Amino acid sequence: MTPLLLAALLQIVAPPVAVSTDSEPCVTCHETFQPGLVGHWRRSRHSQVTLASAVARPAAERRISLQSADGPAAGQVVACHECHGRNPAAHPDTFDHFGARVHTVVTPEDCRACHPVEVDEYAPSKKAHAHGNLVDNPVFAKLLGVALGRPGGPPSEHTQASTCLACHGTEVKVTGKRTVTGELGEVELPKLTGWPNQGVGRQNPDGSRGACTSCHARHEFSLRVARSPETCSQCHLEPDVPAWDVYRESKHGNLLMANRSEFAWDRVPWRVGVDFTAPTCATCHSSLVVRPDGETVAARSHDFGARLWVRLFGLPYAHPQPLSGQTTTLRNADGLPLPTAFDGRPAPAGLLSPTTQAARQEAMRRVCGTCHSQGWADGHFARLDTAVAESNELTLAATRLVQAAWQRRLADPAHPFDEPIEQHWVRQWLFYGNSVRYAAAMSGPDYAAFKNGWWLMNTNLAELREWLQRR
Amino acid sequence: MTPLLLAALLQIVAPPVAVSTDSEPCVTCHETFQPGLVGHWRRSRHSQVTLASAVARPAAERRISLQSADGPAAGQVVACHECHGRNPAAHPDTFDHFGARVHTVVTPEDCRACHPVEVDEYAPSKKAHAHGNLVDNPVFAKLLGVALGRPGGPPSEHTQASTCLACHGTEVKVTGKRTVTGELGEVELPKLTGWPNQGVGRQNPDGSRGACTSCHARHEFSLRVARSPETCSQCHLEPDVPAWDVYRESKHGNLLMANRSEFAWDRVPWRVGVDFTAPTCATCHSSLVVRPDGETVAARSHDFGARLWVRLFGLPYAHPQPLSGQTTTLRNADGLPLPTAFDGRPAPAGLLSPTTQAARQEAMRRVCGTCHSQGWADGHFARLDTAVAESNELTLAATRLVQAAWQRRLADPAHPFDEPIEQHWVRQWLFYGNSVRYAAAMSGPDYAAFKNGWWLMNTNLAELREWLQRR
Amino acid sequence: MTPLLLAALLQIVAPPVAVSTDSEPCVTCHETFQPGLVGHWRRSRHSQVTLASAVARPAAERRISLQSADGPAAGQVVACHECHGRNPAAHPDTFDHFGARVHTVVTPEDCRACHPVEVDEYAPSKKAHAHGNLVDNPVFAKLLGVALGRPGGPPSEHTQASTCLACHGTEVKVTGKRTVTGELGEVELPKLTGWPNQGVGRQNPDGSRGACTSCHARHEFSLRVARSPETCSQCHLEPDVPAWDVYRESKHGNLLMANRSEFAWDRVPWRVGVDFTAPTCATCHSSLVVRPDGETVAARSHDFGARLWVRLFGLPYAHPQPLSGQTTTLRNADGLPLPTAFDGRPAPAGLLSPTTQAARQEAMRRVCGTCHSQGWADGHFARLDTAVAESNELTLAATRLVQAAWQRRLADPAHPFDEPIEQHWVRQWLFYGNSVRYAAAMSGPDYAAFKNGWWLMNTNLAELREWLQRR
Repeated sequence: MTPLLLAALLQIVAPPVAVSTDSEPCVTCHETFQPGLVGHWRRSRHSQVTLASAVARPAAERRISLQSADGPAAGQVVACHECHGRNPAAHPDTFDHFGARVHTVVTPEDCRACHPVEVDEYAPSKKAHAHGNLVDNPVFAKLLGVALGRPGGPPSEHTQASTCLACHGTEVKVTGKRTVTGELGEVELPKLTGWPNQGVGRQNPDGSRGACTSCHARHEFSLRVARSPETCSQCHLEPDVPAWDVYRESKHGNLLMANRSEFAWDRVPWRVGVDFTAPTCATCHSSLVVRPDGETVAARSHDFGARLWVRLFGLPYAHPQPLSGQTTTLRNADGLPLPTAFDGRPAPAGLLSPTTQAARQEAMRRVCGTCHSQGWADGHFARLDTAVAESNELTLAATRLVQAAWQRRLADPAHPFDEPIEQHWVRQWLFYGNSVRYAAAMSGPDYAAFKNGWWLMNTNLAELREWLQRR
Repeated sequence: MTPLLLAALLQIVAPPVAVSTDSEPCVTCHETFQPGLVGHWRRSRHSQVTLASAVARPAAERRISLQSADGPAAGQVVACHECHGRNPAAHPDTFDHFGARVHTVVTPEDCRACHPVEVDEYAPSKKAHAHGNLVDNPVFAKLLGVALGRPGGPPSEHTQASTCLACHGTEVKVTGKRTVTGELGEVELPKLTGWPNQGVGRQNPDGSRGACTSCHARHEFSLRVARSPETCSQCHLEPDVPAWDVYRESKHGNLLMANRSEFAWDRVPWRVGVDFTAPTCATCHSSLVVRPDGETVAARSHDFGARLWVRLFGLPYAHPQPLSGQTTTLRNADGLPLPTAFDGRPAPAGLLSPTTQAARQEAMRRVCGTCHSQGWADGHFARLDTAVAESNELTLAATRLVQAAWQRRLADPAHPFDEPIEQHWVRQWLFYGNSVRYAAAMSGPDYAAFKNGWWLMNTNLAELREWLQRR
Repeated sequence: MTPLLLAALLQIVAPPVAVSTDSEPCVTCHETFQPGLVGHWRRSRHSQVTLASAVARPAAERRISLQSADGPAAGQVVACHECHGRNPAAHPDTFDHFGARVHTVVTPEDCRACHPVEVDEYAPSKKAHAHGNLVDNPVFAKLLGVALGRPGGPPSEHTQASTCLACHGTEVKVTGKRTVTGELGEVELPKLTGWPNQGVGRQNPDGSRGACTSCHARHEFSLRVARSPETCSQCHLEPDVPAWDVYRESKHGNLLMANRSEFAWDRVPWRVGVDFTAPTCATCHSSLVVRPDGETVAARSHDFGARLWVRLFGLPYAHPQPLSGQTTTLRNADGLPLPTAFDGRPAPAGLLSPTTQAARQEAMRRVCGTCHSQGWADGHFARLDTAVAESNELTLAATRLVQAAWQRRLADPAHPFDEPIEQHWVRQWLFYGNSVRYAAAMSGPDYAAFKNGWWLMNTNLAELREWLQRR
């Protein structure tokens, strides 16, 4: 009998006694018709831990940032109505459902009830702004228009939702009501655009941004899942953001794959060398990481860029991380809403100062330092600096060539992404330059040699040159 | 001590008493010389369960579809001779082997002895016809000829077997006998073409089609393996059929990777939310899936297309699933043995009616509905419909361009796959169009953005246009 | 509580009593500041087994090749000083560290103290010579120069270390001293070039070649990691050496992924069918593999090419394996330091004779034969032979075309890798030809059909032909 089976059977025999009366009928009915959904919840900490006992844990071990709990809710677990019925007036998608007022789209503002610190950390981050940062930036909107275009016109809402906005987040809006017929007869539901979606920058009907379920997948919200690198891999993937591909190839990834069954995936705080023996994405970018003696190595943060100093993702050049998670307000030297100019110069304002960059690198070094010597880390970071500088140089070389094509009227800079020569240029930074930097940052060397990186940067330049020579 | 080690040791100390006298010498001798092969069998249910006890299980829990068992076989397990010695006269590859009459190639007709329903479900499926559907279709044979060609001539038998036919299945024929020298001296064996092979549409010496070992790998025949998505990934792989690549990137795949050690992989029937918490390929396409209360969500089927309504794999356009697993008899409006015409119109006969399509989608929805709300599924399927329509449009745009090239005699339509301009066109539907649809069907969005899908459909079109303009 | 957690807690409560007095202060201090590093070591056999008890094991079960142990070291485990303090005079990177004389770069010569046979097997291998075989070969150095080039000049040391030399190994040299400030104040350390690095052919400060940590990652040195295919995948990766990609897609890989939690990863010797049920890279290329009755199937070797007869990795053609691991001394018929001539003929000297090739194939067949019949293996190897012959033919066809371009002065043979036409040619053998052969050798068929192999060999040839015709 597997642990999962055993746990599930025990739950069925002995359902949690602390489910609120509001949630009880939800559980009963949905357990019949949606046993997968309710099965996830039964495995979750939400179904097993009352608010009072969650708050009573020592500070470092707490999984909620609420400071105290009282009233009837304190003795209850978190079930359906606690989230889907929270603050109904604030949710335009609230509807009547067999006597209850519930909403479909649970948002960070609902999660705030127990996790206020996490929600506040997340709100100003680049992830929370991922929708607007893409679609409200006229330059990126042009690229998206070419990438997802159809012969008949601009990208459809569905296709955007199936591709870019699946990660960046859709705008979920209530446009009316609709009646569907289910196993219990007709049910009236809100009509939603952009649904379903779990993108990190989802624009919710209540005006909030984000979807905690991007990483804490419904309805188990498990730390094991959030800390597993595959979760991040859903969006951080080749060819443009090959974090997963590089990680999997790295020594860190290899150790994880060999030893993952021995990790204490759910332990809080996460102890280096005891609970895990290879870092995952969460270790370096988010989790509260401590030494076995309890000393903090890195504080928890739900701003996943909080330990980052350089933005490897080049647009089109790598540059200091932006000060604000909302990047549409940046202006480069050319007046465009981009973090760097066409020649690579960083925007004059809105990016991290060298001092802040150094402090963030130092925070990351503390994580490296739990396994690696200072000499090791010094060498690693020096190579990353070189990868940033040289990949920017090679992007600039391609930019000079596409600018030559524009000057010779071989392509039209008003539509900078729709001709093959321009698409060569896009690949130079969006795919190859980014990959060189991710590989250097995360020690996945082979990936950047021939797969996606150096070889392609140089052969791409040769093709750009030949294209120009032939015309 | 691992469970595997413990189980293996117990087996060695106490071999199954119920092995037939026909099989006993096989086990003894092959255990010495092929301990890996026999070790697999020792781990299998075949080595541990007698026919009588298999039949005696409650109907829903049964792993065989034979209804009753009597005679001496009822008290025995399934060992070597039960399969390799079954019905020797029907097998042209039967040979004398130390006094026994055995055959090398065990076929579905052998498996039928205990699994008749499964064999009957499989026989009319597209998988069973995968060999002929490829090599007997003159259009596809031309594409295969280009893809696998050599300077000196057509694709060799070996190369076909090492590539396309490894999945589609070879034709295994007996062409004589040969003598080999092994550890026990000279042995005479049948001489086989197309061997080894485990392709789904293998043409067996006994005239049957298929290889159950494609998914139930020899000689353990484990459900864990058949239900693991990696098994399907052997053939359903990028760039043309990226089911695995999309799944791995999807939330379903991510949950599986994080939690796979907790699944009850071998449970029959498979209970949603109790035995597994994320679907694998088998969940949606084949397994008997039930609610924890025993209610059937989806019936078992070994016709893996039984719950499919639209054929995403475009040739060159997505279209309603064919009525018959044998697709060479289809005729499109151009008179070619293809499911769609050059302009995308489905063949006038031989494809599913809208009513049957709707019924199949409904069967799939029941699986989705165990975890997802109706609104979630509605949104999902609406996007899939759009992906089908728009990827077909973009394929048509490429078809118009290659047709223009043929009209201008820049390429020869009699050899439609051998020029670069034509190969651009092939990639548009075989790689990019298919990928867009698989990604939408299985929610692996990032894959279809830049990796293999939308960006490539549009840049490929730009390259086709430029190629034509330059000539 | 996970096994890892339990083990770690036990270790903390009861530290190994057999740590030498030299190592005790290292453990104490580094455990505080580098708990990850020391946690790895605590999980290792090094921290748990004394030399005397390691030597006392039956020969086949021994994990060290040292024959006897006496003196004080016999009663001790292997901790920090036993490796980092060994033979200080031989290590130019030795420095004073709080009273101890230690060196950073532990080399095979240090490991030799307990593992002399393994070090001697490794020393003459291609892996040990991987650095020089690349950078000291003027032909390959030209290719490397193009692949990693910058507009301003030749590849930087950092970029080489971040890509090719991460696997091939850097040259680690001491260039002086440097002072760093850590948690305990200022420390003086050796200044190293090419550091960090774990490449298989690392040139160490003590003059030795190799890094055992390439596969036996620091500081756990676990068999589980060394035997996991992901470890090899760090360097043996698409597009040029797609061993991992092919393996993962193969039946072997699929069985591993489904069943890996049941393997006895750490057992020595490794018993087919008992300890593991699917081969990993180590099974076929390195491990001591035995039958359950103890009979040796394959002897352990740390020359990972010892069971290989044909070198699939074409430069540019597949050819008999070289006699020596140092390949720069080979001379082809054109006088270049390559194993084959431009027309594919193998170098007249320095490659395996057909007799030795046959003996090595026979050694590999013994491994196959533990699970597969002779007919199965015969068919498999016949297809591999065909894949070698045909992929060489298709490489030759591309070579003829690039030679035509050179003769027509459309490109310059003095710089054979820097023009698009030449880069098409490079891909033909370095990516596509190699992939066809790896896929045939390791039964990952789909990979070589459309992903990386046959289709690309043929479409690449069509593009080369068109390029020439247009000029």
